[in-house]
Amino acid sequence: MEVILKNPLDMHLHLRDGDMLSLVAPLSSRTFSGGLIMPNLIPPVTSKEELISYRGRILEAIGDDNFTPYMTLFFKPTYTEEFLKDIRDNLTAIKLYPAGITTNSEGGLSGFDLDEIGDTLDVMSSLEIPLCIHGETNGFVMDREAEFGAIYELLASNFPNLKIIMEHITTRDSVELLDIYDNLYATITLHHLLITLDDVAGGMLNPHLFCKPIAKRYEDREALREVALSGHPKVMFGSDSAPHPQDAKEAHFCSAGVFTAPIALQLLTELFLENSNLDNLQKFISDNGQNIYKNLEFSPKEVVLEEREFTIPNRYGDVIPMFDGKKINFSIKEVR
Amino acid sequence: MEVILKNPLDMHLHLRDGDMLSLVAPLSSRTFSGGLIMPNLIPPVTSKEELISYRGRILEAIGDDNFTPYMTLFFKPTYTEEFLKDIRDNLTAIKLYPAGITTNSEGGLSGFDLDEIGDTLDVMSSLEIPLCIHGETNGFVMDREAEFGAIYELLASNFPNLKIIMEHITTRDSVELLDIYDNLYATITLHHLLITLDDVAGGMLNPHLFCKPIAKRYEDREALREVALSGHPKVMFGSDSAPHPQDAKEAHFCSAGVFTAPIALQLLTELFLENSNLDNLQKFISDNGQNIYKNLEFSPKEVVLEEREFTIPNRYGDVIPMFDGKKINFSIKEVR
Repeated sequence: MEVILKNPLDMHLHLRDGDMLSLVAPLSSRTFSGGLIMPNLIPPVTSKEELISYRGRILEAIGDDNFTPYMTLFFKPTYTEEFLKDIRDNLTAIKLYPAGITTNSEGGLSGFDLDEIGDTLDVMSSLEIPLCIHGETNGFVMDREAEFGAIYELLASNFPNLKIIMEHITTRDSVELLDIYDNLYATITLHHLLITLDDVAGGMLNPHLFCKPIAKRYEDREALREVALSGHPKVMFGSDSAPHPQDAKEAHFCSAGVFTAPIALQLLTELFLENSNLDNLQKFISDNGQNIYKNLEFSPKEVVLEEREFTIPNRYGDVIPMFDGKKINFSIKEVR
Repeated sequence: MEVILKNPLDMHLHLRDGDMLSLVAPLSSRTFSGGLIMPNLIPPVTSKEELISYRGRILEAIGDDNFTPYMTLFFKPTYTEEFLKDIRDNLTAIKLYPAGITTNSEGGLSGFDLDEIGDTLDVMSSLEIPLCIHGETNGFVMDREAEFGAIYELLASNFPNLKIIMEHITTRDSVELLDIYDNLYATITLHHLLITLDDVAGGMLNPHLFCKPIAKRYEDREALREVALSGHPKVMFGSDSAPHPQDAKEAHFCSAGVFTAPIALQLLTELFLENSNLDNLQKFISDNGQNIYKNLEFSPKEVVLEEREFTIPNRYGDVIPMFDGKKINFSIKEVR
């Protein structure tokens, strides 16, 4: 059988910079029409100049592919109305990291003092700039996202006109917030739909499945699957594909991030088909994102997948993908 | 200040075999008077011949040190009364592994059918052979020990004359079982007194702190500390020190085990002193074990520790210890 996906969008993507950008950008641009590009470079993207320059490097890295990078700024509470008005047409969203919560987030936000961040969030509301959030506290690793729920609620209720995207949600609690607050939305990754903490640390420890937020319990994965497979209109695919060189993963101190960009469509097709929800994959992979973000430009593309065995490569350059070496049932036949 | 520990015993110790045995055995025998040696070699120790031979290799590896290895067999439900009577004087305990639950446990027990294992456990009761158990189910990694509680209760209530040691307990639930069943005892490791899952996977992933059972929550660690620091008579030190070469830890698939043998006494002294329970350390490190196991022979030894900065070595051979490079407050001054 064949499956055709129109204009796949990856609404949470790490393309890095330099050699890594050159390696991984084409692995997204081949099959995706667009992607929301995370700003946590070193240093993070916090100015119009840096944003435009980074966009240029991305376009250079993807070469002739049709792919639209949706640019983001790294949230700072110091962003003024003047600054945001000036940059509005160049960006799609602003990404907020709590300080120190994940890779290259050292310059992130400490605390959620509405007096400190309120002005910036008000301007974002009026300019209709969505706020994407890595929603974890500094608490116990398995509780961080659940603890952050109160902050999502604080922000959602105090800024009702601000579109807030709960990025890479991993828990049942987060899923439930979607139906309580009109202005909360979510991305879900491929790996959180497929793995639990058992895959990371239940047998031998697998650093290539270590990510933030860390994979959770079976009941959490079940909640994520239910909401994604149902085609829930407030949920969209964001891979959080986050490449690290092999020697930064198989190391004394292993960086967080799972690399999935080039295998995401194949595995999502398999997952949605297995659960008889193939019709909803188009919503999850593109339509919902277009509706949530509104007015997204993208590079028209149809990806044709066919039911044919595909062995996930052992490596892409010096990056080991999720499930390296595993045989799966769907291959990409054609991109047109 | 100086602290003197008499006859320290490590009641749960992996010495491995071959080159690794040669490397790590002297790192225990230098400061410990005796240790309970785990039988999960490849193949596991299941015969008198293998047990005596392994004991000989251990004695050879420790050279001139005074150290008494307490030998164990790998539990099999096929052990007969005749076999156990014959081997009784050569062993201290029998170690039960559920199948596949940790390193080299593939030949372990599947299920806990009392019809299958009852005869062997009855003989062990009458011969007063303690049963040491790695108490985890095959469930979700954070729940395995809690789920195993029901099996501890089943065994403790059906074999009231069998001394059952809950090995390397990691949860508050397990601690609570100690005061419910007369015949349940426990070992606690150094690392489970010091770390939580946050240290393993809360920041960067640290494979050298990955072990089974996996480190749990703060409230679990608190329960372990309370019972160990109180000198509870049913609790004894068992390091579960489990060396792996660096390249088996910093790898795509990382083996479980934390190596602590040569730094255990220093860190325990620091921990007990910080919590003003130094008087109870002698109980935890030796006296309780002697009382629980009864008639343990050991090699008399006094370890003198002094309050002097000690930097944990970055490596012992090709094994990276816990907290490598960390400065701690206690050094071993003298062993006499």
